Amino acid sequence: MTTQALADALGLTLLGNGKIELNSVASLRTAKAHDLIFVESAASLPEALASSAGAVLAGEFAKEAKSKKPLLIAEQPRLAFARAAQILIAEPETRRGIHPNAVVDKSATLGKNIGIAAHVVIGAGCDIGDGCIIAANSFIGAGVRLGRECRIGPNVTIYPGCTLGERVEVQAGTVLGSAGFGYVRDAKTGRYHHFPQIGSLRIEDDVEIGANVTIDRGALEETVIGRGTKIDNLVHIAHNVRIGKNVVIAALTGISGSSVIEDNVIIGGQVGIGDHALVKEGVILGSGSGVLTKKIVRGKGVVFWGRPAKPLKQYLKELAALGKLSKK
Amino acid sequence: MTTQALADALGLTLLGNGKIELNSVASLRTAKAHDLIFVESAASLPEALASSAGAVLAGEFAKEAKSKKPLLIAEQPRLAFARAAQILIAEPETRRGIHPNAVVDKSATLGKNIGIAAHVVIGAGCDIGDGCIIAANSFIGAGVRLGRECRIGPNVTIYPGCTLGERVEVQAGTVLGSAGFGYVRDAKTGRYHHFPQIGSLRIEDDVEIGANVTIDRGALEETVIGRGTKIDNLVHIAHNVRIGKNVVIAALTGISGSSVIEDNVIIGGQVGIGDHALVKEGVILGSGSGVLTKKIVRGKGVVFWGRPAKPLKQYLKELAALGKLSKK
Amino acid sequence: MTTQALADALGLTLLGNGKIELNSVASLRTAKAHDLIFVESAASLPEALASSAGAVLAGEFAKEAKSKKPLLIAEQPRLAFARAAQILIAEPETRRGIHPNAVVDKSATLGKNIGIAAHVVIGAGCDIGDGCIIAANSFIGAGVRLGRECRIGPNVTIYPGCTLGERVEVQAGTVLGSAGFGYVRDAKTGRYHHFPQIGSLRIEDDVEIGANVTIDRGALEETVIGRGTKIDNLVHIAHNVRIGKNVVIAALTGISGSSVIEDNVIIGGQVGIGDHALVKEGVILGSGSGVLTKKIVRGKGVVFWGRPAKPLKQYLKELAALGKLSKK
Repeated sequence: MTTQALADALGLTLLGNGKIELNSVASLRTAKAHDLIFVESAASLPEALASSAGAVLAGEFAKEAKSKKPLLIAEQPRLAFARAAQILIAEPETRRGIHPNAVVDKSATLGKNIGIAAHVVIGAGCDIGDGCIIAANSFIGAGVRLGRECRIGPNVTIYPGCTLGERVEVQAGTVLGSAGFGYVRDAKTGRYHHFPQIGSLRIEDDVEIGANVTIDRGALEETVIGRGTKIDNLVHIAHNVRIGKNVVIAALTGISGSSVIEDNVIIGGQVGIGDHALVKEGVILGSGSGVLTKKIVRGKGVVFWGRPAKPLKQYLKELAALGKLSKK
Repeated sequence: MTTQALADALGLTLLGNGKIELNSVASLRTAKAHDLIFVESAASLPEALASSAGAVLAGEFAKEAKSKKPLLIAEQPRLAFARAAQILIAEPETRRGIHPNAVVDKSATLGKNIGIAAHVVIGAGCDIGDGCIIAANSFIGAGVRLGRECRIGPNVTIYPGCTLGERVEVQAGTVLGSAGFGYVRDAKTGRYHHFPQIGSLRIEDDVEIGANVTIDRGALEETVIGRGTKIDNLVHIAHNVRIGKNVVIAALTGISGSSVIEDNVIIGGQVGIGDHALVKEGVILGSGSGVLTKKIVRGKGVVFWGRPAKPLKQYLKELAALGKLSKK
Repeated sequence: MTTQALADALGLTLLGNGKIELNSVASLRTAKAHDLIFVESAASLPEALASSAGAVLAGEFAKEAKSKKPLLIAEQPRLAFARAAQILIAEPETRRGIHPNAVVDKSATLGKNIGIAAHVVIGAGCDIGDGCIIAANSFIGAGVRLGRECRIGPNVTIYPGCTLGERVEVQAGTVLGSAGFGYVRDAKTGRYHHFPQIGSLRIEDDVEIGANVTIDRGALEETVIGRGTKIDNLVHIAHNVRIGKNVVIAALTGISGSSVIEDNVIIGGQVGIGDHALVKEGVILGSGSGVLTKKIVRGKGVVFWGRPAKPLKQYLKELAALGKLSKK
């Protein structure tokens, strides 16, 4: 693809040679003649121009730069670079059809152009949308519905009855729809009895889920992951949790039962959220912070930190006060 | 099943119509005509009585309530509801027998009425008890013994030599009996050598284990999980740990090598316990708390919080003192 | 193997009978007549000598001890014991060859004396070194290279293009080479777009990785795990991270994108490291500590503790100051 064609496809301004062939993206350090690279600051521009890359994608700061390399100018250069990568780099070709070593129940409904790899199990009554790819050794329980173009990694488990929207991506080892950790203790015997975990799990369009994640199904109702939400590796989401749209959750975070996370929340790594908590729209929970049971955290764009989570300003004040005190 | 039959089966007092048919449980919001629901407080009772549910299970506070719906009165309504669910909702029917795509070693001993799904591997000398169900793509190593009626989820790994009691439930992706993280550093070369991890893992009756959990086998002796203990998703239990009976461990908690957790302990999410620690009977470790190496934590029913873990009262005092200090 | 032969093999001083047959190692409590045990302190020696063990491995403190049992004297007794175990205990015999239920791409290169178990999938162009053993139900993506004598546990996923050195051990359920958690938010639509994750993962010789670990491949470059590094269960390592040689990382720790961990660092359990951080050679991060984004932590042998991580001395001072303050 030429620099001109890429600029056209992404709606970017091209400065310089429009006929350079590009076939991948790279970092400054690793770029070769047909790679696109990007820079986000004027300070990095000279290094980019001196690299071996075929073309440089940059912000508007680069408009006046003197360059022998073609420059693509974008308002959001990192975003444009991500989109360029989607255009330049084809998804690795995956064998379509059903591998003879897969076990697909006769009652399953299979869309067009799907790929079901070796040792996959597809349960009774599943509905697998057009273009879905299910990698090797995954288990799809009875009655699961996958929307179009889902990507299910190897060794994934989807328990019966879960519903995934379109373009949902699930990486290896992840477990969707497990029974929640809800028990009732018998006050007389001291034994724990499982509270019924007969609800479901619904994952909306464009959700992406990392590796070895666990998301429990609802107890009596639903667990819901909203459209466009992104979940990192080793995250735990408990039964009845409701997560909004375009939420980001970093690795090793745990969200306890029945909590609600509203749209556009950003959650760092190793965050802990107690049960029945409410994190309001646009809150930012810093890494390692903790939200107590039943608490409400609010403030669009407000950063919280610490255990229990406090607004960053207060957290820093306390940190400073403690440091000072210890020197007395 | 009629309301009368259910009341009889659970030993509950029935008020009202004994002939209403029930076939499932539900929440207030989702209940339909043949569902049982439950309430734990008088405040929720009117809403429950106004719902579409077929019957309401409630505490003794509801004895004098005026209701057109049948009422089942229980001393522990949540517990009675959990038991009612076990009666009303049949376990999803699972194909019994051995799937032709499973690989079962000839020397394995198989009980009656077991279900071994596709792509399961059962190693040499295994002993699988009556009524066990092993879901697809799981690996059961050589010499593993499962007691009666175990439920092993998909993509589970049980390393050779582990012993599980009766009615043990293990959800998807969990790893039992992995080699512990014990190394000896050579002071001369700086290289780490694996300390022998040749012990075993013994899991007693009625233990329930979530998804993507890891429990290491002992180094030279045993790792033990006591009867009735419940373990949430993504929990890590190291080599030589001994966990008592009816312990509850929430998600993302880690217990280091050779620690002992006595009976009836409750451990929140993301708790960290150092090695060779001792958590005495009935202690409650709040979410995110940390117990240092070799520490002893004691106090039946005493709640500990923070890192390092302190009794809740002291923890709250320190929190308050710090907040006050930062405002000076 | 006789006590004399073992002493010779390990270069240890033997005191007493050189003809006792040994065939395993054990703990003091479980030792039988042909087991070797070890003690690290003079205080434990009498108990060891009174045990049923066939021989006792001890430090130089035991040189003058009166013993009827043979004594093996080592400068580093725990290390010598670990090595003795490697000699005395044969690796469990594994069936070599390719199981008929495995699916191996014709274009894969397979070394000598390898073992590929049931339901394993080996992708196109893989290069599997001599003596490798891949346990049941694992997935090895296209183009993966494994050096000699690797041990891959059951239900493991290795994404396409990863490179493992020699003698790398990976336990069950671990995921190597997953796509990193890198997103670019479109400031106009609020939607997240995946930043390209087309880099690779390189794991050097003698690395050992526990169960249900996740290690992401690089975004544009490499994620690297250095020679001899040991990683515990449920650890998360993000894209572009570079880990040095002989690093130890305990369970449930998370290392964010592009951070660098230099040689000989020791990282406790549940540690969190922000992105683009630098942990310099020989630092010790205590369990549960946190390193902020872009921070540099330095000091060979210096112990850090707390969130944010501070030198232990300062951390303890602050803890004490807070405790005192709360009592006023």
